[in-house]
Amino acid sequence: MSDFSRLAINQFTTLHQWSLPQAIEGYARHGVHAMGVVRDKLHEVGVSEANRLLKAHDMKVTCLCVGGLLTDSDPDLFRANLDSTRRAIDEAAELDADCVVFVAGGLPEGSRDLAVARARCLEGLAEVLPYAKRAGVTLGLEPLHPMICAFRSCLSTLGQANDWIEALGAGPELGIVVDVYHVWWDPDMEREIERAAGRIVSFHVCDWLMETTDLRLDRGMMGDGVIDIRRIRRLVEATGYDGFREVEIFSERNWWRRDPDEVVEITKARYLSDVI
Amino acid sequence: MSDFSRLAINQFTTLHQWSLPQAIEGYARHGVHAMGVVRDKLHEVGVSEANRLLKAHDMKVTCLCVGGLLTDSDPDLFRANLDSTRRAIDEAAELDADCVVFVAGGLPEGSRDLAVARARCLEGLAEVLPYAKRAGVTLGLEPLHPMICAFRSCLSTLGQANDWIEALGAGPELGIVVDVYHVWWDPDMEREIERAAGRIVSFHVCDWLMETTDLRLDRGMMGDGVIDIRRIRRLVEATGYDGFREVEIFSERNWWRRDPDEVVEITKARYLSDVI
Repeated sequence: MSDFSRLAINQFTTLHQWSLPQAIEGYARHGVHAMGVVRDKLHEVGVSEANRLLKAHDMKVTCLCVGGLLTDSDPDLFRANLDSTRRAIDEAAELDADCVVFVAGGLPEGSRDLAVARARCLEGLAEVLPYAKRAGVTLGLEPLHPMICAFRSCLSTLGQANDWIEALGAGPELGIVVDVYHVWWDPDMEREIERAAGRIVSFHVCDWLMETTDLRLDRGMMGDGVIDIRRIRRLVEATGYDGFREVEIFSERNWWRRDPDEVVEITKARYLSDVI
Repeated sequence: MSDFSRLAINQFTTLHQWSLPQAIEGYARHGVHAMGVVRDKLHEVGVSEANRLLKAHDMKVTCLCVGGLLTDSDPDLFRANLDSTRRAIDEAAELDADCVVFVAGGLPEGSRDLAVARARCLEGLAEVLPYAKRAGVTLGLEPLHPMICAFRSCLSTLGQANDWIEALGAGPELGIVVDVYHVWWDPDMEREIERAAGRIVSFHVCDWLMETTDLRLDRGMMGDGVIDIRRIRRLVEATGYDGFREVEIFSERNWWRRDPDEVVEITKARYLSDVI
């Protein structure tokens, strides 16, 4: 029998089709019992009701998306995102999620100073970490592809994430999220995955389409692109990571327009043929 | 008086508007006397006629674009691109160009094995280097942005280019092309530019648009985006590089549709305001 016990689906994969209650019910109906939760969707129903539905469907929350965006020089914007990250930590604690996905943030409006943005983010991380530690929640630093550095994440490589963790000297309240989409091209990927041993708290899969038409919202289903997903999974799992393999697909032109039940069925099939 | 003696314009900047004779005449008319040449455009007129026009307009050729694309496993395709690279070397020698821009190539059709593609390219480079050395021509390795790794260049970072040069143990027949567009996001940029000291043979500028709509053909004019171009120029020149600052803009939706004389005039103005 096929084993889907380590398959998780991130709610972004059916972002346009399903609310959180629908996604919980839908994934569970297809035998998938772990999911990443999108905070906007969570706020539509509230944490208590979400928790009730999650328990009713025996659904584990892997990661909560997202916290961070701590690159602003403007103190008010910086503060607002710091507060939002603290709320994400509270939510993750209530949902018993494995981690909050931490997205660094891009260049502040009007800025060209990447070094300053990166320093600001580190500063914000240092400020929020004690809060995460007290809550028993892990922040998962997710390096995002360099192509979205300007507007989304000045944390661009696994090497940089490893450097940040070492600079912060943090404990289990800080980890790394490895998403094949963001790291597959990196000549240092293998070395930096090894270096991340013991720090990897979430592993995400999808595929890179040869004809990518958008910098953020045109990811492919596993098997439809050029990433050797299985190889990267093995590298990640060779470090000792034994958590979920989470499918996360942003796809404005394809998967977000399909019947969500079909998306889940194809996800399961491709999990077997192209991930494990 | 404004000094344009170190300004070069790469012919890609007016790709859709001007043939090679028109570009030579056009750039010279605006007081720009150095240019990067696109091989397809060169072949339309032939090397001899091009040379005559270049001399008549006192036009220096900086780089010839492009050679390489040596990642194919298929021996025939590999051989064809190796031959093409040798012809590019011959052409560069005849034009007295500073270098041939070497683009690595992406994943071969149907392949997901980036390590193999990279190894194949190194193999091809090793094979073609003696030919370049005999011709007295430099191949300029240009790392291209990770977002075009799949279909264009498995050489993705300056660090990788430095590693390749050290692995090949080559002399002046091998150098590095630094384009701000491809390297600005890299957390290791500063260190790897320093490491490339003495190897940098060409320096290209344009800008990264916050709202980039295409992975390859949507570059911005200097000043319209978020790259701190002046800072990167200073880093490059601090290594001892004293060559041209070459403007190279691929822009399907804007600059390739504009009056080319206007493009050159704006290029000159932005060179003064955002590059030097």
